[in-house]
Amino acid sequence: MNTSIKLLAIGLLASGLSVLAQGPHKAPKSEGTLKAAVGAQPDLFAQQMKLIEERRAAWLAKAEAATPKLQRLPLKPVALVKVEKDAASFQGWKAVAAGKPESVCNKPLKPGDSFILDFGEHFAGQFIFSLRAFEIPVDAPVRLGLMFGEVPAEVAESPDSYSGTLTRSWLQDEVFNFDDVPQTVTLPRRYAFRYVKVTVISCSKHGKFGFSDFAATALTAADEKQLAPFTPRNATEAALDRVACRTLRDCMQTVFEDGPKRDRRLWLGDLRLQAQANYVTYRNYDLVKRSIYILAGTATELGLVGTCSFERPTPSRGGNSILDYTALFAPTVLEYLEASGDRATAEDLWPLVLKQLDFTLEPVNTEGLMITPKSWWCFIDWHRTLDKQAPEQGAVLYGLKATLKLAEKLGKGKEVAFVPAAIAKIEAAARKHLWDENLGLFISGPKREVSWASQAWLVLAGVPTQAQAQRALKGVMARADAEKPMTPYMHHYVVAALLAAGLQEEGWRHMQGYWGEMVRKGADTFWEVYVSGDDFLSPYGSHLMNSYCHAWSCTPTYFLRNGGKP
Amino acid sequence: MNTSIKLLAIGLLASGLSVLAQGPHKAPKSEGTLKAAVGAQPDLFAQQMKLIEERRAAWLAKAEAATPKLQRLPLKPVALVKVEKDAASFQGWKAVAAGKPESVCNKPLKPGDSFILDFGEHFAGQFIFSLRAFEIPVDAPVRLGLMFGEVPAEVAESPDSYSGTLTRSWLQDEVFNFDDVPQTVTLPRRYAFRYVKVTVISCSKHGKFGFSDFAATALTAADEKQLAPFTPRNATEAALDRVACRTLRDCMQTVFEDGPKRDRRLWLGDLRLQAQANYVTYRNYDLVKRSIYILAGTATELGLVGTCSFERPTPSRGGNSILDYTALFAPTVLEYLEASGDRATAEDLWPLVLKQLDFTLEPVNTEGLMITPKSWWCFIDWHRTLDKQAPEQGAVLYGLKATLKLAEKLGKGKEVAFVPAAIAKIEAAARKHLWDENLGLFISGPKREVSWASQAWLVLAGVPTQAQAQRALKGVMARADAEKPMTPYMHHYVVAALLAAGLQEEGWRHMQGYWGEMVRKGADTFWEVYVSGDDFLSPYGSHLMNSYCHAWSCTPTYFLRNGGKP
Repeated sequence: MNTSIKLLAIGLLASGLSVLAQGPHKAPKSEGTLKAAVGAQPDLFAQQMKLIEERRAAWLAKAEAATPKLQRLPLKPVALVKVEKDAASFQGWKAVAAGKPESVCNKPLKPGDSFILDFGEHFAGQFIFSLRAFEIPVDAPVRLGLMFGEVPAEVAESPDSYSGTLTRSWLQDEVFNFDDVPQTVTLPRRYAFRYVKVTVISCSKHGKFGFSDFAATALTAADEKQLAPFTPRNATEAALDRVACRTLRDCMQTVFEDGPKRDRRLWLGDLRLQAQANYVTYRNYDLVKRSIYILAGTATELGLVGTCSFERPTPSRGGNSILDYTALFAPTVLEYLEASGDRATAEDLWPLVLKQLDFTLEPVNTEGLMITPKSWWCFIDWHRTLDKQAPEQGAVLYGLKATLKLAEKLGKGKEVAFVPAAIAKIEAAARKHLWDENLGLFISGPKREVSWASQAWLVLAGVPTQAQAQRALKGVMARADAEKPMTPYMHHYVVAALLAAGLQEEGWRHMQGYWGEMVRKGADTFWEVYVSGDDFLSPYGSHLMNSYCHAWSCTPTYFLRNGGKP
Repeated sequence: MNTSIKLLAIGLLASGLSVLAQGPHKAPKSEGTLKAAVGAQPDLFAQQMKLIEERRAAWLAKAEAATPKLQRLPLKPVALVKVEKDAASFQGWKAVAAGKPESVCNKPLKPGDSFILDFGEHFAGQFIFSLRAFEIPVDAPVRLGLMFGEVPAEVAESPDSYSGTLTRSWLQDEVFNFDDVPQTVTLPRRYAFRYVKVTVISCSKHGKFGFSDFAATALTAADEKQLAPFTPRNATEAALDRVACRTLRDCMQTVFEDGPKRDRRLWLGDLRLQAQANYVTYRNYDLVKRSIYILAGTATELGLVGTCSFERPTPSRGGNSILDYTALFAPTVLEYLEASGDRATAEDLWPLVLKQLDFTLEPVNTEGLMITPKSWWCFIDWHRTLDKQAPEQGAVLYGLKATLKLAEKLGKGKEVAFVPAAIAKIEAAARKHLWDENLGLFISGPKREVSWASQAWLVLAGVPTQAQAQRALKGVMARADAEKPMTPYMHHYVVAALLAAGLQEEGWRHMQGYWGEMVRKGADTFWEVYVSGDDFLSPYGSHLMNSYCHAWSCTPTYFLRNGGKP
C-alpha cells in the first residue's frame, strides 16, 4: 500500500475509533469459552470482583497520595530561528539560526512583527515572558498570537490550514490580550514545545511595547539526579539514549502521559513501556504506582481495568477498551513488583490482575484459539488493515504467563490453578492454527496474513521454539509483502522479540536503524508515528496533529541500559 | 458639514492626536504674557514647584491609601438574544429575545455553535461560566471564541472587519482554550458589556462538553447603599437618572475611568464631571481624592498636573496635555472641598492648583486675550474644525475664578493677589475681541467662527451680562450654521451655561432632548459620542470602537439632583 493511501486509510480509522472503542459492556461469560474448558469458575472471578469493589476507593486514594511534586527546570531560549523550506529536512522545513533571542528584546514592536524562539530542546512546560514599555505608557491592550511547536512544521504552517480528524484545539496556538505593561507573564497552560512563534496581532501605535525577557519552566516528574548512570559504547548509542530519556522525561508528569502535547492521557499499554524505561533511568517508582492505581481505581463496574484514564479534573475512565492493553496489566504489575520490591501494592492489586483473565480469555475458544472479537478495540499498532488474530493470541498468552508468574511470587497459586491448562491450550492452538511450517511464519486471520506483529507477539508469548522464532522473525523482515509496523510502539515489540529469540545483532541493528533515523532527521524526542520514507504519515489526517514526543517511543534507553535483555 | 465628512475628519484627527498631544515641555515663560502684566512673579511659581516636589511622593502614597475595595455584584444573564437587522434600531441592529439562558445549558455543543447572552444591563466586570461533560470524559481542549458587547452591533459585526484608527485590541474579543472539563471559569480580564457572544471554535466530537451555568460579577466602587435618594418628577427624569447613574457606576472603578471598555483611564476633564455627579449620587469622596492625587502625583517635572494618568501597573502620566483640562483642576479641587469638607487635602494640593496658572495663563497675551497655542492640545470637544480660541478663553477664565475662590477658602489671598487683575483683563479682552454686539454672539478665531462651545464657555466664565448670555445662547442654538457639540461632554457645558444664564426651561429641554434621545434608542449607559441622526459617528473611524458607557456623559443625574443649580 502506498503511503498516501495508508495515510488516508489510517485517518479514516482514527475517525471511526470511537465506535469501536467502547469496549465490553456485558458481563464476561464462561460457557463455550476456554475459561469453562479449563475450569476457571465464575465464582473465582465473582470473588475478585467483590475485592475490587471493596478496594477501589482506596486505590484512588493511594494514587492521590503518590502524586509527585514536579521538578521545575528553568530554561532560556537559545536562539532565534527562521524556518525555511528545505526538501532535505524533516517534513521539508529547516530551522535556521537567525540571531540571539536578545535581539528582539528591548525594542518597540508593531502589529505584524513576528519571530520564532528556539529553546534548544523539547520540553513540556510553561512559557514566560516580560512585557515592557518605552518612553510613554502603553495605552492599549497588547494582543499576541502564540504558536508552540514540537517540530519546525508546526511553527511554519498555519494552524488554520488544519483539516485532520482529531479536534483542532489540540494545536497549540493561542491569542492573548494583556492590559498591563510592564508585566511578567507565566502562561497558565502547559505546552509541549521547543519552538515558540510570537506574532504581534495588535498594539498601540503610540505607547509602544516590547519584550524584555523570555524564559520557560520545564515540568517533569523525572529527577535528573536519580538518572541511573549509563556509559554508551558509541555516539549512536549516546544519541539514542539521550533522545529516549528526554522523551520519557517530558511524558513523566503527574502520571505517565502518552504525549505531553496530545493527548496527555494515561494509557495502559504506553505505561508499560514507560515504566520499563523508567526502571533503568529515572527510577520514579511512585509515579508508576500512582499511574497503575489510577487505572485500577477507574476500572469499570464489571472489573475491567482502565485502558486509558483521564487524570484531571478527577481520575475517570476513558471510553476505550483495548484487548491487548488489558492483557498487559499483569506484566505491568509484575514488572513493577520486580523493579520496586513493593509487594504490598502487588498484593493489593492482585484481585484486579486475576479478574482481567475473565475478559482476556473470553474471546478465546475452547480449543485455545483467539476469535478476533468485535466488541473490543484490538489495537496492536496504528495500522489500518492489520489482521489482529495472531498478535492478540500472542498478547493474551503473554499476559496469562505474567499472571501465573505474579501469582507464584505472591503465593496465589491456588487461585490460578486453571492457568497452566489455559496456557497449554492457547500455545497448542497457536502452533496448530497459526503456524505455517511451510512458510516458517505465523499467519493471522482468514486471509492468512503475514505480519511483523504476528511473529513478534507469538515469539514474545513463547509459542515457537527458538529456531522457529528466529526463522519467523528473519523471514518476515525479509518479505516485502509482510505487513510492517507503523509506530515505535510496535517496533518496540519487534526488537523485544528479536532479543527474546536470541537475535541480538538483528535487534540492535533494527533499533539503531529505526530510531536512529529519527535522530538523524533531527528528533529531540521520539515520535508517535514513524515509517521510514514518509515524514507526513499521521493516524489523524495531518502531520500537525502527530505527537512528536510520544512515550511509547522511549524504549531505546530500556534496551540500551538492559544490555540486550528482552 | 455632512456626517460622513465629519466622521472621516474626526477619524483623521484622532489618528493625528499623538502628535498634538505631547503638551508643553518647556518651562513656562512670563515675559510678554499676561502673567508679567499683572505681576505674577516667577518666584511665586518657583515656590509652588518646590512644594510640589516635596509633596509628590506623599500624594501618590495618599492615592494608594485611598484605593477603594470594589463592590462585587453577582449577576445572571436574563435572556438569550438574537441580533437582527432592523433599520429602526440603533445602528441598525435589534436584540430580539430568543429564549432563556438555561436553554443552551446542559446540552452537548459542537464546533460552530454560537449564542448571545444578554445580562439585561451594562456593567464592567468578569464573566463566569461552568463547563461540563456528559457521559464520557471530554477528551480534547475546548476552544471558545468570546465577544463582549456594550451594544448589539458589537456582537453582530465581526471584529475582523474593524478598520478604525485606534488599536484593534480594544475590541473585546477573545479566544480561550480550556484543558479541564468540568470546571468553573472566571475570566481574568474585566470587560464592559451587556451582551456576550459565545462561539464554539473547536471541541471533541467524542467526549462532548456543554455549559452548565453562566454568571458575572459586576465591579464598581459605587455603593448602591450610599446612593442619595431622588424622586423623579416623571418617567423621563427617572430614565435619565437611572441611565446616568449606571454610566457613572460602571466608570467608578479604582479610579474614575473615562470608559470601562476603552480607554479605562483617568482624565482630568472627565473626572470633574464624574465627581460632580458622584457628589449627588454615590458620594464616594475617597475615590475623588484618590483620582485627584494620582493626577497630582503624576504631574510633570515642570509641575503641570496630569491631563490623563494610567493607574496601572503603577500610576504614570499619559503623554497628553490639554489646556482646558488643566484649567479645570482648580474647579475640581474646589468642588471636592465643598462637597467633602476635606480641607486638609485641598491645602495639600494648593501649590499645584496655583502652579497651573503658570501654564494656563501663558497663552494669554498682555491684553488678556487667548492666543490659541500650538504646543497644547486644546480639546473642548471631539470636533475636527472647531476654533478653540473663545472656548479656551472661557475655560482658562473659569479656572482662574475657581482658583481665586479656593484661595479665599484656604486663606491664601496673598498668593493670588495678581488674580483679580488677570480676571479683569481677560474679561475685558473677551468683551472687546470676542463679543460681537451686532450678532449678539461670541466669535472665535480669525474666521470669527460662531459655535455653541464659545457661547457656553464664556457664559460659564461670567463674561457676558445675563441678558447677553441669554441672547448668545438662544441665538447660537437657533443658528443652523453654528458649530454644534459632538459629545455629551460639550453638551454638559451647554446645559450648565443655559442654567447659569437663567434659562432653566431651555436647559431642561436640551438635556431631555439630547440624552433622552439616547435613552429612546435603547442606551443602558450614555455614550462617548452622539450626534442626533448619526448612529455611526466615531472619533476613531469605527462605531465598534466608540465607548458606549462614557463617564463624561453621566451628568443628567447631576442636573436632575441639583434641581437646576448650575
